Amino acid sequence: MLGNFSYSNPTKLYFGDDAISFLKDELKNYGSRVMLTYGGGSIKKNGIYDEVIKALKDAGKEVFEDPGVMSNPTVQKLYEGCRIAKDNDVDLILAVGGGSTIDYAKAVSVSAWCEEDPWDKYYLRMEDVDNRIIPVGSVLTMVGTGSEMNGGSVITNHEQKKKIGHVFGDNVMPKFSILNPKYTFTVLKYQMVAGIYDIFNHICEQYFSGEDDNTSDYLSEALMKSVIHASRIAVKNPEDYEARSNLMWAATWALNTLISKGKTTDWEVHMIGQAIGAYTDATHGMTLAAVSLPYYRHIMPYGLPKFARFAKEVWGIQTEGMGDEAAAEAGLAAMEAWMKEIGVVLSAKELGVTEDMLEGIADATFLLEGGYKTLSRNEVIDIVRASM
Amino acid sequence: MLGNFSYSNPTKLYFGDDAISFLKDELKNYGSRVMLTYGGGSIKKNGIYDEVIKALKDAGKEVFEDPGVMSNPTVQKLYEGCRIAKDNDVDLILAVGGGSTIDYAKAVSVSAWCEEDPWDKYYLRMEDVDNRIIPVGSVLTMVGTGSEMNGGSVITNHEQKKKIGHVFGDNVMPKFSILNPKYTFTVLKYQMVAGIYDIFNHICEQYFSGEDDNTSDYLSEALMKSVIHASRIAVKNPEDYEARSNLMWAATWALNTLISKGKTTDWEVHMIGQAIGAYTDATHGMTLAAVSLPYYRHIMPYGLPKFARFAKEVWGIQTEGMGDEAAAEAGLAAMEAWMKEIGVVLSAKELGVTEDMLEGIADATFLLEGGYKTLSRNEVIDIVRASM
Repeated sequence: MLGNFSYSNPTKLYFGDDAISFLKDELKNYGSRVMLTYGGGSIKKNGIYDEVIKALKDAGKEVFEDPGVMSNPTVQKLYEGCRIAKDNDVDLILAVGGGSTIDYAKAVSVSAWCEEDPWDKYYLRMEDVDNRIIPVGSVLTMVGTGSEMNGGSVITNHEQKKKIGHVFGDNVMPKFSILNPKYTFTVLKYQMVAGIYDIFNHICEQYFSGEDDNTSDYLSEALMKSVIHASRIAVKNPEDYEARSNLMWAATWALNTLISKGKTTDWEVHMIGQAIGAYTDATHGMTLAAVSLPYYRHIMPYGLPKFARFAKEVWGIQTEGMGDEAAAEAGLAAMEAWMKEIGVVLSAKELGVTEDMLEGIADATFLLEGGYKTLSRNEVIDIVRASM
Repeated sequence: MLGNFSYSNPTKLYFGDDAISFLKDELKNYGSRVMLTYGGGSIKKNGIYDEVIKALKDAGKEVFEDPGVMSNPTVQKLYEGCRIAKDNDVDLILAVGGGSTIDYAKAVSVSAWCEEDPWDKYYLRMEDVDNRIIPVGSVLTMVGTGSEMNGGSVITNHEQKKKIGHVFGDNVMPKFSILNPKYTFTVLKYQMVAGIYDIFNHICEQYFSGEDDNTSDYLSEALMKSVIHASRIAVKNPEDYEARSNLMWAATWALNTLISKGKTTDWEVHMIGQAIGAYTDATHGMTLAAVSLPYYRHIMPYGLPKFARFAKEVWGIQTEGMGDEAAAEAGLAAMEAWMKEIGVVLSAKELGVTEDMLEGIADATFLLEGGYKTLSRNEVIDIVRASM
């Protein structure tokens, strides 16, 4: 815990198979005009839409619908949402969906009353918010991003081939989030597995950095172990409530700032993954999975002790007497075996990446400091190519 | 994660060797009349008092001093604090000290404007707070109780031989807490070690309960491992900043509700320890240490798989092929060795417990459900006697 930092998180969470019953009480804290934001309409098939509408009606709210949020929310959709929010002067944005929908709701929250182009101000230039913010609440239906308890918001501009995430402050985090593990049962297996790997990689990004001895690293190992254990159950039986609930809870704590406290972090896998996303529109978690093994094998020599610790503490490998390098390799081999077991995509080609995209993907990749090695543009190309 | 629950924590934390610099900004959120609550005056020797007074003066506050909070804050002191707070109509209680001082500040916070006897209403009857609450902020100088980020408040009534903790809601938690690990350097080693065991036992109380597979248990193991590791460094070198900072951070997260989410908890060691405290005025953490091993060895047969897991995951014992019972015993033996290594008190006699107190201690001990076994009154006597 060597750095100075502050911690606060204002999001109130309601967790469990009865969590929706608290929505009515939470709604009392806001005015009568609610924008209801959701994705492609799956919530109408599985009954969640009806439950939410009932709570809104019981609370006497006027509802302004904003459906159609795509898995990689676009800047065009953002402009559309801003118009709905502003024209109707909404008091609350209620996002019902996964990370994409909640990320998008935060984007509308800060952008609706922004007098400039919000893409330029809040994504390209990453400025602080200085205009009116519309409060956001969420009902989570897909697990992975942690967007339900953080300030993160990723928006994609296909024209500019850019997918950019801005981590906003406390005032943009959801005021409340409803977490019912059963709401995730109907998520397609491909999406569930992508979400599982997204959680795991969020932890890796914060874990594989820094050389100090830090409580945050122990907490990261705990979350990784819980995710690995629960994922093995969930891929066999997606309706195992305990496994899905552990995944949901671990996802929230994997990316609400706790496990990064007092240490440096990496995030380069996300940078490459987001660049791939901007080019292919592939599912976020799978873009991370496709580049992770080449990336971690590439940086492993620069953070050997941590990779050796990962093998021992996360994968339970008896590393005594092995030497750091062999231990580190064994840890990544165990990670690879687990990734194959749960069925993530390990090939960028399978996600639609072609040789002629590589230069563009490298250009679209932010090269961050903070991890064990700062990549060059050419190393990004090598890593993506190694996944093809 | 089988239960339904909610989570929110409004406390803002400032952590690091420069954390006090944020006090001035926080003070802007409150009126001009500040009650400054502290203990026996050690903060005047180590310079913390001067730093705090400077921040208060720079912020233009009028300060009402309330010194002399004892290690087990008494109900008489509470009445005195209530008079100071009410007579001066203070806008904020700033507690500078360890858990005792912060616990006491919360007690004054809810009691000053209470129209009944607050001991009866908030401790004996544990009622919800329905009167005006004075906001509390804290500057932490001793690590262990987690009071800096929770609603807990333990008050002792020596006349009634009762030491009772009430866990108040979000609205009573500190609004902000300043956590500077260096502020803990001058704590006496006995107190530091007692605090370390207090942290560890808080985790045990939440871990040794329930049979489900729960993310909270993984997080508990992580915190225990971090505490064990850091404690070994801190007892050798109390000025090791990294070790003291990890202890400080782990203490906060050990008792801010996170690791109890979705599971049952025990808390019987605390019940017995508090009864001993009411009779002896012994240091809280040491009362827990003195009864822990007899207690856990007594309940071990009722929660064997968890104790076996504890041996493997927390103490790194190779338990394969051992059988649960042998593994569980090995785990508690490792815990005992660690307790001796860091120098906690293992004998209730050493804390001042005498044979003629045993009946009274048993009477003063709340018998809780929630752990692996609900004790009888006689079992409490057996456990305390085993520590003598």
